Amino acid sequence: MTRSLLTPLVASLPATVPFIGPEEMERRRGRPYAARLGANESIFGPSPRAVAAMQAAAAETWKYGDSTSHDLRAALAAHLGTVPAHVLVGEGIDGLLGLLVRLTVGPGDTVVTSAGAYPTFNYHVTGFGGEIATVPYRDDREDPQALIDKAREVGAKLVYLANPDNPMGTWHDAATVQAMIEAVPEGCLLVLDEAYVEFAPEGAATAIVPEDPRVIRFRTFSKAYGLAGARVGYAVAEASLIAAFDRIRNHFGMARISQAGALAALRDQAHLAWVRAEVAAARDRIAAIGRDNGLSAMPSATNFVTLDCGADGAFARRVMEQLDARDVFIRKPFVAPQDRCIRISAGPAAELDSLAAALPGALAAAGRG
Amino acid sequence: MTRSLLTPLVASLPATVPFIGPEEMERRRGRPYAARLGANESIFGPSPRAVAAMQAAAAETWKYGDSTSHDLRAALAAHLGTVPAHVLVGEGIDGLLGLLVRLTVGPGDTVVTSAGAYPTFNYHVTGFGGEIATVPYRDDREDPQALIDKAREVGAKLVYLANPDNPMGTWHDAATVQAMIEAVPEGCLLVLDEAYVEFAPEGAATAIVPEDPRVIRFRTFSKAYGLAGARVGYAVAEASLIAAFDRIRNHFGMARISQAGALAALRDQAHLAWVRAEVAAARDRIAAIGRDNGLSAMPSATNFVTLDCGADGAFARRVMEQLDARDVFIRKPFVAPQDRCIRISAGPAAELDSLAAALPGALAAAGRG
Repeated sequence: MTRSLLTPLVASLPATVPFIGPEEMERRRGRPYAARLGANESIFGPSPRAVAAMQAAAAETWKYGDSTSHDLRAALAAHLGTVPAHVLVGEGIDGLLGLLVRLTVGPGDTVVTSAGAYPTFNYHVTGFGGEIATVPYRDDREDPQALIDKAREVGAKLVYLANPDNPMGTWHDAATVQAMIEAVPEGCLLVLDEAYVEFAPEGAATAIVPEDPRVIRFRTFSKAYGLAGARVGYAVAEASLIAAFDRIRNHFGMARISQAGALAALRDQAHLAWVRAEVAAARDRIAAIGRDNGLSAMPSATNFVTLDCGADGAFARRVMEQLDARDVFIRKPFVAPQDRCIRISAGPAAELDSLAAALPGALAAAGRG
Repeated sequence: MTRSLLTPLVASLPATVPFIGPEEMERRRGRPYAARLGANESIFGPSPRAVAAMQAAAAETWKYGDSTSHDLRAALAAHLGTVPAHVLVGEGIDGLLGLLVRLTVGPGDTVVTSAGAYPTFNYHVTGFGGEIATVPYRDDREDPQALIDKAREVGAKLVYLANPDNPMGTWHDAATVQAMIEAVPEGCLLVLDEAYVEFAPEGAATAIVPEDPRVIRFRTFSKAYGLAGARVGYAVAEASLIAAFDRIRNHFGMARISQAGALAALRDQAHLAWVRAEVAAARDRIAAIGRDNGLSAMPSATNFVTLDCGADGAFARRVMEQLDARDVFIRKPFVAPQDRCIRISAGPAAELDSLAAALPGALAAAGRG
């Protein structure tokens, strides 16, 4: 490639990738995992009605998807008590975050996030030339006041909060998040990532006020709805901000089958309730497995549990690697002091049995003691 | 929305959209189309094996797609006689074009294309702040020499050629395109859009020399493979250019079902051959329908036929509108003098019967006389 072909910005970007996927890791290790507990997917699966809807839509895949995702947006708007002008459907929260950053961040602009929070957001910010300012977690939770203070200090365009949080699983109550919304500085937008909100206890989610220009909210079908591979996320925000995405988004980017699957999944709230119950039970089991091995569990409002390995990041990394060697795929936080933990997705009994069987040996091999 | 939230570039962008989709048009007109012949979809459908593969993959949609599309890339590389390092899979050519423009074009950069060529490419260029220089079609074909001359004149980063061409359906032989590749100026890249290449006659496609740094080639599963709604396109180029996409792409953006569908479709070359034969027959039928109504057909190497309505753009627009009023969805070129034409996708007999029934009345109502 002629070096001069790339823009100066792109030429300056690192070749790093936010996450290596489990299939790629399986190819590198040369054998499959027995338990896939690292990507916070919903191993409990999507609604059977969503599966049926996708199967029915398969033969119609010669048609492009509806460029406005009209039916899904309408259903989401009704579900959320708003109108479609406040809702945008896109290719997962990752894709929508990329578009939001492109809309708002260029060279010279700064965003604020927590050190160790969702790396794909940072990937997009760096990719569009923005600067990232961080504040530390406080007591293993994101720190709304510190985020707001930093946003004010640096004149941030965006300030990111995941509630509930990934990778820690912790959360803030609605009053705390609402106070954060009220405190967003002029000219700044709160990026409220609610990928895991369906798993949160009552009272953790703020009321949606879609006209509020201070916050954009992201939700997804990848987690509780079990459709990670379909790539369907959505944003809820003030209508003119939603409309601005139309200036840059890939209008025919949504897969038609995915639109059908998400619509059917949304309509099956009974399946969602079942998944929530299964996830709650799995969280308890993961915490118990940790306890049996001397590891304490973070409280979780998500479909994963973060276990404190009780030492430093290097030890936790060895535990993760030893679980990998025992065919259990997990991930871990990567910034101190949260990097002392490992992060384990909820799953059915068979997967958690694999975890329970592997963890004692992994801890021993990691050199605890 | 606080106006200052948007970057100056985004704030300057128009709210226009390259295409209104047929579902949105159906909602606006208040009733469905009888014949969907405007989006160059393959109404003949995908391979039944691809449908079966997608149906089988539906229950696995709780997993994210493979971030490297490993199996599909490997199969494509083998199919093309190269290695996966030269192949990138992405969310349709539209998505890949957006990424390519982002890699290479910023404010102050210029690209070259033909006036009236694929508008989504222009949409991306404008969206990233680039300037567009155009040359006219010559005899209803893109003009390789003029494109190269203009690229040299303006110092273009990219020069775009669709072969076969959309919206005219015309094409150049391999020798002409290869000569264009040889003439690409230093510091410029030929964007060779081969979305319709599977429909082209023998000898229209240049040999793929994946190490050649002067050209990036785009192909898709949306047309001949009948998977428009799955959103799977691919690029073939020099390895370091392919690798550069990894710095900015949405790594987990591919739908898992789509990956499975495309892989199965690629393996069913017999279905592809059947589609090619059906399309060839449908092209002849569309040309005959045109002839019966006094309209001449452009020669076509695609899955559509462009009919010359024999007057100006306003007349052709009225014909299109009158077909719409008769429940036949088509599109048309939008830049003179090509805008004197209408563009009709190949389809099965029932759809073409609808066209044949509607066209005489549409022409009369459009005021031919």
